[in-house]
Amino acid sequence: MSQVSNLKQTFIDIRSNKVFEIFVISVIIFSALKVGVGTYPLDPNLASALKILDWAVTIFFLVEILIRMAAEHSLKRFFSKGWNIFDFVIVTASLIPIDESEMALLGRLLRIFRVLRLVSMIPELQVLVNALLRAIPRMAYVSLLMFIIFYIYGAMGSIFFAEINNQLWGNISIAMLTLFRVATFEDWTDVMYETMAVYPLSWTFYLSFIFLVAFTFLNMMIGIVIQTLQTEHEKFVENEAQHGPEMIAETNPINSPGTDARLAKIEAQLDRITAALEVSPQHK
Amino acid sequence: MSQVSNLKQTFIDIRSNKVFEIFVISVIIFSALKVGVGTYPLDPNLASALKILDWAVTIFFLVEILIRMAAEHSLKRFFSKGWNIFDFVIVTASLIPIDESEMALLGRLLRIFRVLRLVSMIPELQVLVNALLRAIPRMAYVSLLMFIIFYIYGAMGSIFFAEINNQLWGNISIAMLTLFRVATFEDWTDVMYETMAVYPLSWTFYLSFIFLVAFTFLNMMIGIVIQTLQTEHEKFVENEAQHGPEMIAETNPINSPGTDARLAKIEAQLDRITAALEVSPQHK
Amino acid sequence: MSQVSNLKQTFIDIRSNKVFEIFVISVIIFSALKVGVGTYPLDPNLASALKILDWAVTIFFLVEILIRMAAEHSLKRFFSKGWNIFDFVIVTASLIPIDESEMALLGRLLRIFRVLRLVSMIPELQVLVNALLRAIPRMAYVSLLMFIIFYIYGAMGSIFFAEINNQLWGNISIAMLTLFRVATFEDWTDVMYETMAVYPLSWTFYLSFIFLVAFTFLNMMIGIVIQTLQTEHEKFVENEAQHGPEMIAETNPINSPGTDARLAKIEAQLDRITAALEVSPQHK
Amino acid sequence: MSQVSNLKQTFIDIRSNKVFEIFVISVIIFSALKVGVGTYPLDPNLASALKILDWAVTIFFLVEILIRMAAEHSLKRFFSKGWNIFDFVIVTASLIPIDESEMALLGRLLRIFRVLRLVSMIPELQVLVNALLRAIPRMAYVSLLMFIIFYIYGAMGSIFFAEINNQLWGNISIAMLTLFRVATFEDWTDVMYETMAVYPLSWTFYLSFIFLVAFTFLNMMIGIVIQTLQTEHEKFVENEAQHGPEMIAETNPINSPGTDARLAKIEAQLDRITAALEVSPQHK
Repeated sequence: MSQVSNLKQTFIDIRSNKVFEIFVISVIIFSALKVGVGTYPLDPNLASALKILDWAVTIFFLVEILIRMAAEHSLKRFFSKGWNIFDFVIVTASLIPIDESEMALLGRLLRIFRVLRLVSMIPELQVLVNALLRAIPRMAYVSLLMFIIFYIYGAMGSIFFAEINNQLWGNISIAMLTLFRVATFEDWTDVMYETMAVYPLSWTFYLSFIFLVAFTFLNMMIGIVIQTLQTEHEKFVENEAQHGPEMIAETNPINSPGTDARLAKIEAQLDRITAALEVSPQHK
Repeated sequence: MSQVSNLKQTFIDIRSNKVFEIFVISVIIFSALKVGVGTYPLDPNLASALKILDWAVTIFFLVEILIRMAAEHSLKRFFSKGWNIFDFVIVTASLIPIDESEMALLGRLLRIFRVLRLVSMIPELQVLVNALLRAIPRMAYVSLLMFIIFYIYGAMGSIFFAEINNQLWGNISIAMLTLFRVATFEDWTDVMYETMAVYPLSWTFYLSFIFLVAFTFLNMMIGIVIQTLQTEHEKFVENEAQHGPEMIAETNPINSPGTDARLAKIEAQLDRITAALEVSPQHK
Repeated sequence: MSQVSNLKQTFIDIRSNKVFEIFVISVIIFSALKVGVGTYPLDPNLASALKILDWAVTIFFLVEILIRMAAEHSLKRFFSKGWNIFDFVIVTASLIPIDESEMALLGRLLRIFRVLRLVSMIPELQVLVNALLRAIPRMAYVSLLMFIIFYIYGAMGSIFFAEINNQLWGNISIAMLTLFRVATFEDWTDVMYETMAVYPLSWTFYLSFIFLVAFTFLNMMIGIVIQTLQTEHEKFVENEAQHGPEMIAETNPINSPGTDARLAKIEAQLDRITAALEVSPQHK
Repeated sequence: MSQVSNLKQTFIDIRSNKVFEIFVISVIIFSALKVGVGTYPLDPNLASALKILDWAVTIFFLVEILIRMAAEHSLKRFFSKGWNIFDFVIVTASLIPIDESEMALLGRLLRIFRVLRLVSMIPELQVLVNALLRAIPRMAYVSLLMFIIFYIYGAMGSIFFAEINNQLWGNISIAMLTLFRVATFEDWTDVMYETMAVYPLSWTFYLSFIFLVAFTFLNMMIGIVIQTLQTEHEKFVENEAQHGPEMIAETNPINSPGTDARLAKIEAQLDRITAALEVSPQHK
């Protein structure tokens, strides 16, 4: 075995080491706490200590991702996993030296997003997030319908109410934001009473909007519930197909091996009778 | 083949052309964007350009609906579909020349409702909207019960609280709107504290109302969920009835063709034995 | 047939007459509308006209309930139905002449509750309301748990926060009302920020309360959903038991009469063979 | 039988006595009411009467728990039940004499928590609370994901918005509390409009947050519903396994003893035929 493949094996061993994994997770949590602490006013000494620790964390993450890359068969395979790409971008972006104030903000944001590495490290969270991502296309058409409702009411709102309150109904974007506010029931009556002073029947606008949105939202929720139940049911049936037959056999007497065995015995006996009578099926 | 039917075939071809369909959808989306842009303050040149584009869109929609009408066997059949009637009304109403300011508003509204043509063009959205429309009668009685609750509490509210705050409880309509506000929890305690200053026990009015509405609403939701689950289950069973038996046969050993085939073989063999023994069933 | 039983038959005929039923419902709706109209400021002439109409409605209801009572076998049986008692109380209470202002208020309330007679007249609404009433005991223990949570937090709130805001936390009743307000998320942060000024950690009080209530409420909802699904499932199974077997037989090939018939034929043929061979089971 | 075991039997009898149980529950309810009454301003005489009653209740609880301890086989077994430990802590803590004002507050809190003894006394409430406690680990990962979302948005919020409103976004803890407020839709637009004045695009921050939280929350809810349904289903299947087979046999004709009996009869007859023909299977 060459030295290179020897080294690779070492990397694979490190990567799959439970202690190493827990250590990586600990570093991520520490990095997250550091971000949290950074939002409080700090003693200058502590702040500079945090800065050094931040570099230590960044370098650790770099080493960790290099080990994971080296442990993979090829770089192509490493980058075929979405979570690996995410980790790589987060880690490499942290390496770019930042001095300007605007870039510093970006640097701080990157450090925040490092918390998301927790998701890429804990399989249970990955499953959850993947499930959430998978649910998006499933809701695409209901979301489109919802958007059409918002768009139509937003256009109507900005045409009729823009002169009443430009702050809330100035243009279609602002109007849609105001409608989202109405959909969350947040001080929606203040919005309504204001327009009702000019158009006394404008409550129909708000009530029809609330009912339509609630109704469509309800449908979306039911759709997701049914989809989830179906997926669970399919998993259950699949599971059943592998382990089920024996279970069925036990509870269902007709499926007992007895029936088959008995039919076989009857067949054998008939064969013998036939033979005894010297009746060959063909010659008859 | 006459020239007329030749032309009809052309129209049918156009209508079912995927490219044409996508183009129509694009024009609808463009028309929707135009409506959205129109809510922003615009440069006069751009505004007049939009006006010309609006006419182009209107004419295109007219041509498109004429093609769809010509492609149909008869006008009666064309108008038998609700969505076609909707399209026709939206398109022809846009043709009416409008000058007065009030009619101009109607014209703008019509242009907004053209966004709904998206629903009539995308089958998936049609299915969703049809499902929503179908759900309405299903909820008729629960809605009636809900209305009775609102009506009774509205009447009580306007009798007791009208003198406290005429703005909120002046008459039964205003009171019912206030109750809807209470049902959405929007600043409902402000409403309650005001009446509690006069009637200290009026919190019973609000709490009983909230509980009744929440309870009835919950029941309505559960009703819809169960109805939807049942519909889905029926679809599943129907599907099973067509494709299922083979599936069952595979997993259930007693249903394997073996049992039938073996019984058939036993019968055949018994027939031969009978023949060999020269026992005719009748003569015995 | 005596004249009395003749009269009784007439009453039964009237009661079950569809036209009479619709007329009663119309009078109830009219009475409801009258209540609604009464909340608006009215012309004195119209007001006195309404007063006369009100007496007409009251007398009609009296006659209607007397017919229903006469049509029943006995008064005992009439009063065994909850809805009949409700109707009787509403109608007879309307007959009491009222002059004083306070009693007039009660009279107006009675007229409002006459709207509920719609529920007693429309069977579909009766089914709904009965279902709602039946659901109450089912939720008794969860409600008790919810009350205990409110009670404990209410007691804690009034001990700690009474000095901060006597209006909101003065005693346990007021505190529980404030907590209900927090549970509906209605300006709950205003309540919290006020107490956080004195007890900076009091957000734990509010957050733990919100989580506990949300959690218990969720459990109550799930409980109701499961209960409803089970009831529906039982109805379905019951239905299946009556009509199902044939359905199963059709889809399940093993249950086809074929198998039984074939076994019967095999038996018959074996009997004949046995006979032919002249083998009597006993003599062998 | 010794005097000691005689006494033990007496304690066991007392503990399982229905009347004693109801009396204990009554004392707990009385103790709860006393706590409630204590939050109102009281007459000094009544207050001192309540103080004496409080000692009576405390001593009664002490006697009751000593009986329950004596009735158990061993102290170890008594303390193996979580609810017993809870009862013991609540009762013994009440015995500590308290004079200082701060300790008095603790004493009042202890008296409030005595209401929870209702849960430990009523089995139905115990089942509910146990179910709620069991549900916690089930939601651990979704809660962790929710916390990560809050943490990331909290960090972002405190970085960007701390200078706009230090009261709401001062540090990550305050920011997370503000985000919880946004998640409950409580005056969230006020928070948003304030930051939109500086960062016009900050609505994306709020909307993405609301969608993420709503989405994750929905998933958590669905997860709980499915889990509960599965548990119920398993209970149902288990129940079925014990009582079901006979039920299946009745409805499913193929499972009737007939089939087996008939096959047995065919076998017997074939045996006889074979014998008659004098065909021994081996000699053939």
